[in-house]
Amino acid sequence: MERHLIIEAVEPCVDGGRYAAKRIVGEPCRVEADIFRDGHAVLRAVVKWRRKTPRRNPGQESPEFIEAAYAETPLRPLVNDRWRGEFPLCATARYGFTIEAWTDGYASWLFDLQRRVEGGYPDVASEVVEGIALLQEALAVAGDEGALLHRAVEALHAARHDPAAVLALAAEEALGEAMLRLQPRRDAVRYEPELEVIADRPRARFGAWYEMFVRSQGSDPARGATFREAEARLRDIRDMGFDVLYLAPIHPIGRSKRKGPNNTLRSDASHPGSPWAIGSEHGGHTAIEPALGTLEDFDHFVAAARQCGLEVALDFAIQCSPDHPWVTEHPEWFYHRPDGTIKYAENPPKKYEDIYPVNFDTDDRWGLWHALRDVLLFWIERQVRIFRVDNPHTKPLVFWEWLIPEIQADHPDVIFLSEAFTRPKMMKLLAKAGFTQSYTYFTWRNEKWDLTEYLTELTTSGMQEYFRPNFFTNTPDILQAVLQKGGRPAFMMRFVLAATLSPSYGIYSGFELGENTPLREGSEEYLDSEKYQIRVRDWNQPGNIKELMARVNIIRRENPALHDLTNLRFFETDNEQLLFYAKMTADRSNVILVLVNLDPAHPHHGTAMVPLEEIGVPPGARYEVCDLLSGARYEWSERNYVRLDPQVQPAHIFRVERHLP
Amino acid sequence: MERHLIIEAVEPCVDGGRYAAKRIVGEPCRVEADIFRDGHAVLRAVVKWRRKTPRRNPGQESPEFIEAAYAETPLRPLVNDRWRGEFPLCATARYGFTIEAWTDGYASWLFDLQRRVEGGYPDVASEVVEGIALLQEALAVAGDEGALLHRAVEALHAARHDPAAVLALAAEEALGEAMLRLQPRRDAVRYEPELEVIADRPRARFGAWYEMFVRSQGSDPARGATFREAEARLRDIRDMGFDVLYLAPIHPIGRSKRKGPNNTLRSDASHPGSPWAIGSEHGGHTAIEPALGTLEDFDHFVAAARQCGLEVALDFAIQCSPDHPWVTEHPEWFYHRPDGTIKYAENPPKKYEDIYPVNFDTDDRWGLWHALRDVLLFWIERQVRIFRVDNPHTKPLVFWEWLIPEIQADHPDVIFLSEAFTRPKMMKLLAKAGFTQSYTYFTWRNEKWDLTEYLTELTTSGMQEYFRPNFFTNTPDILQAVLQKGGRPAFMMRFVLAATLSPSYGIYSGFELGENTPLREGSEEYLDSEKYQIRVRDWNQPGNIKELMARVNIIRRENPALHDLTNLRFFETDNEQLLFYAKMTADRSNVILVLVNLDPAHPHHGTAMVPLEEIGVPPGARYEVCDLLSGARYEWSERNYVRLDPQVQPAHIFRVERHLP
Repeated sequence: MERHLIIEAVEPCVDGGRYAAKRIVGEPCRVEADIFRDGHAVLRAVVKWRRKTPRRNPGQESPEFIEAAYAETPLRPLVNDRWRGEFPLCATARYGFTIEAWTDGYASWLFDLQRRVEGGYPDVASEVVEGIALLQEALAVAGDEGALLHRAVEALHAARHDPAAVLALAAEEALGEAMLRLQPRRDAVRYEPELEVIADRPRARFGAWYEMFVRSQGSDPARGATFREAEARLRDIRDMGFDVLYLAPIHPIGRSKRKGPNNTLRSDASHPGSPWAIGSEHGGHTAIEPALGTLEDFDHFVAAARQCGLEVALDFAIQCSPDHPWVTEHPEWFYHRPDGTIKYAENPPKKYEDIYPVNFDTDDRWGLWHALRDVLLFWIERQVRIFRVDNPHTKPLVFWEWLIPEIQADHPDVIFLSEAFTRPKMMKLLAKAGFTQSYTYFTWRNEKWDLTEYLTELTTSGMQEYFRPNFFTNTPDILQAVLQKGGRPAFMMRFVLAATLSPSYGIYSGFELGENTPLREGSEEYLDSEKYQIRVRDWNQPGNIKELMARVNIIRRENPALHDLTNLRFFETDNEQLLFYAKMTADRSNVILVLVNLDPAHPHHGTAMVPLEEIGVPPGARYEVCDLLSGARYEWSERNYVRLDPQVQPAHIFRVERHLP
Repeated sequence: MERHLIIEAVEPCVDGGRYAAKRIVGEPCRVEADIFRDGHAVLRAVVKWRRKTPRRNPGQESPEFIEAAYAETPLRPLVNDRWRGEFPLCATARYGFTIEAWTDGYASWLFDLQRRVEGGYPDVASEVVEGIALLQEALAVAGDEGALLHRAVEALHAARHDPAAVLALAAEEALGEAMLRLQPRRDAVRYEPELEVIADRPRARFGAWYEMFVRSQGSDPARGATFREAEARLRDIRDMGFDVLYLAPIHPIGRSKRKGPNNTLRSDASHPGSPWAIGSEHGGHTAIEPALGTLEDFDHFVAAARQCGLEVALDFAIQCSPDHPWVTEHPEWFYHRPDGTIKYAENPPKKYEDIYPVNFDTDDRWGLWHALRDVLLFWIERQVRIFRVDNPHTKPLVFWEWLIPEIQADHPDVIFLSEAFTRPKMMKLLAKAGFTQSYTYFTWRNEKWDLTEYLTELTTSGMQEYFRPNFFTNTPDILQAVLQKGGRPAFMMRFVLAATLSPSYGIYSGFELGENTPLREGSEEYLDSEKYQIRVRDWNQPGNIKELMARVNIIRRENPALHDLTNLRFFETDNEQLLFYAKMTADRSNVILVLVNLDPAHPHHGTAMVPLEEIGVPPGARYEVCDLLSGARYEWSERNYVRLDPQVQPAHIFRVERHLP
């Protein structure tokens, strides 16, 4: 048979199938495609899907993915030749899927017959002969349905001169179903290439992160805290409602060229150095800085965190202090000057003399790649399943394209967060290459227009298929101007934005206390940054916003609408400082409306416009909203007066409670 | 070396490279891509392009395309990792292109050196050693540039302790250029797959079409005109300014089940039948209906048309009357009933008993395909280079994907117009599959919002890469309601829209006379349709709009802005009946502003808003526009009062003449 069918525009699909789309295990994967052919025949289509199971073969660098037989689920037509279906993602794994479509000969014949009979044709005997031929072909392969088909053949033949009777017999539902199963898919077409979906665990999409330096969790400014001492902080972090506890590097810190406070070049024995200058005589990426304790102390900390409902995430920074064991064991992994010495990291005129970058163009490619993989496997062995990767955009993309599937083949629950603050296309490509989550530009999006524009891109431009944002309010490197100038209201406002705009978000410790002194005017660096010195804080000092944070994290957990990214919709207000958006479950059983005063300095009021149809409220109806932050209840309609005083409460997080009669 | 470079989002590219983009010979093909890598190195990129020359090998069904060596042209960076360049399309042919990018070692070294020197580094002697190594590697392959490189090596070595002198020597422009040529592209990456562009002749994009039935061009209603007699009409059509003369089928018309006037089932010898019932004892698709004359008469007509500047286009309708020679010679090419008789065309309850459709699922695939190809080759031999293809959406896509390149391999100037009035995705796919031009939904787009929406889709959604619209105001099958009800103003209004919105447009004869009587109320069929009977008209009858048409066609020829499709921009007015749009050349040397009153029944006035920056006028400046239809001149600014009385002149076609001081 001639090839008649066309399958196009299959979704989800990233860059024509070059990269995998990302989904969450346990949720169905919705699939759509354009399917059509010449003429008027009746088409059928299915999504064919299979889990890709990795198998390690001796002597091969990477696992092979065993492609099991396909399972299939039917697609149904929507409008304009668009078809839709779904398949289940039951395991944290990679899945392959494709679309198959074919012409249903019997249904096409029936459709034609129906138009003839309804059009008043007096004679369909010739059509009956054709229909019987289709039934007889199916009879040859029929099992249980044989009797049904046989009866149909007899009856159609007997009724062949009575068009209405023929149609009634031929249109019997059981017959059509049997024929759908039994007919050969003679002109079946399958979409190529097979597309890929990664089913990650739920934490890949939804989670509240807390970043901290273990050494700053103690009470003696002259001495850093150990893991054992830092355990005392866990309950506080749990009470604020966090899910992930991300630790700045915990490995031995180099001595050579160690940085002093505020990134000064001179230091002495009293200065702890930057944790990102990894490696000393005590070991490298698989060792623990002795000042923090031992591997056993680390294990104990991880277990204690888990008891508090906190999952520990580690930093994966591919760089070495001059004292790292690899520098002597594998000098070929580093860059060399013409005189043979190893080059430190430089971005002229900036110098990082306490750090050697790794040379990925080394002749010992596999030696280096395997060593880096083994670092991750070491910590995975110790129950770590989340890695925040430092500056991935300064390493070749091909390395990540190899490393991440290599790890996830055996440990599909491992999450990689890309800490790339760089140009947009590189950030997107790292996500396509496999990073589970990504840092974003959120920190620098402060106005209504740019927050709207950026979130619209993240949620609707196609990025949502592969790029999962993690909105950090601040990092050890980024104290944004709005926090420096806006005081406590700014911290509350930015926190609510991060925690409600994105299902994954994070803070770097000190945020809850409103720490906001920059190194100098115009700098985004912290004064007395923890990167270079030990800090001791009163975690309950006046003015902290821990209560708000705890409340918001409870709201996040209790409201499924806040667990998703792509359900974000911006609504209008008549005030440029009032940002208004909704997050809703597909069935509208959970509708959250968030209103934020973006100006930390002044109260603002205005009208919040709610498109009732979008939130599932009948036209003209009224409904009750509850501010989940204050507990206040209001009767709302299409246009609603709102006022937010940043000193009191810079945001509302409303839930639509019920429709009013 | 590790693979560092990424090349993504290359344009033009249709469906990831599955289909070719369409361009016009003689114009450069602009190419863009996202190109980037990890780190801070300096990149270079080129577009590599080659003409694909077809070669016929004995025994092969399709021509092979010889892939010559690539030529290359540099790309330059724009913003955000986007690069742009172009390559020439010198022949009417298919071209293949790809992008190659690599790291420029010398330029990267120079960039690093510059930052060091400007950052005040006292010593760059080590960097000089590295630079000299790069120069020496290039020296090994240098020809004429050897002396330049040798001098540079000496000078750099001598100056190695003087950073400023080193930088001055290293930054010499000729040196950078020589190094760009001589250095190996060690880490070069090439985009895959190779992408394809078709360079068509200009008529593929720009042309005014006139459709007619040859037999209706005479003066005796009892007898149809011959080709010789129809030649008398050519001057009239030329004077209206048309470029293409498209003829309804000219082949022998079958006798069996011949249709009578107004599609009635009974006819007698006096009825000429539908020209789409192709084939009789006088021959099939390669013969001429005897009532029209002979093949020699056809050749004479084509030559006479050419002398009037008119190119003849033929109809290619793949269907046969029951009297077509193929019916007896190749019964296997048709559908058969169980009793062995051949099936006529049917779309129950509609019957087309004068037509047999062709069965593309015949076992004799190549016999049928080659016969159809040979029909086209027959007419190509007789100087026909444009085919309007009847109902291509009822034939398998794979047939068109084979046929069109097969013909264009030897005859790249052949143009195929797809007459598919069907669902949007099929219409798009036919264009992707190779059709040069396509009929559109223009006929049914009558309001401001839907004209704007449809034209925006045609010009900006990606369709513009492969789908070239041909806006017909009417066809023998489509007399749209606005023409039936709107009278002469509606004909003028729809004509201006078609001729200025799309570079290709057409009318079916009778339009210029305002013929608008439907078969019955609610039907889009003409009463006494020429499809079934001979019509005789007074081509100069009162009320005709030939003068307007001639004027508009002159305006089209004289203004290059009207030759392009994608340069369309809609501007605002404050009246829902006033459509306002601009067509502009890229350099703004030709700016056309079109204002149309969409309501044929009433005058409308309002304000036309011109975004000055878009049309190249300085902020706040005034400029002179000339209405090319009336010759009137106006001084315009940003907001301009306009009024259009449809009885007088339903549209303005302004040209921006000059900016006023």
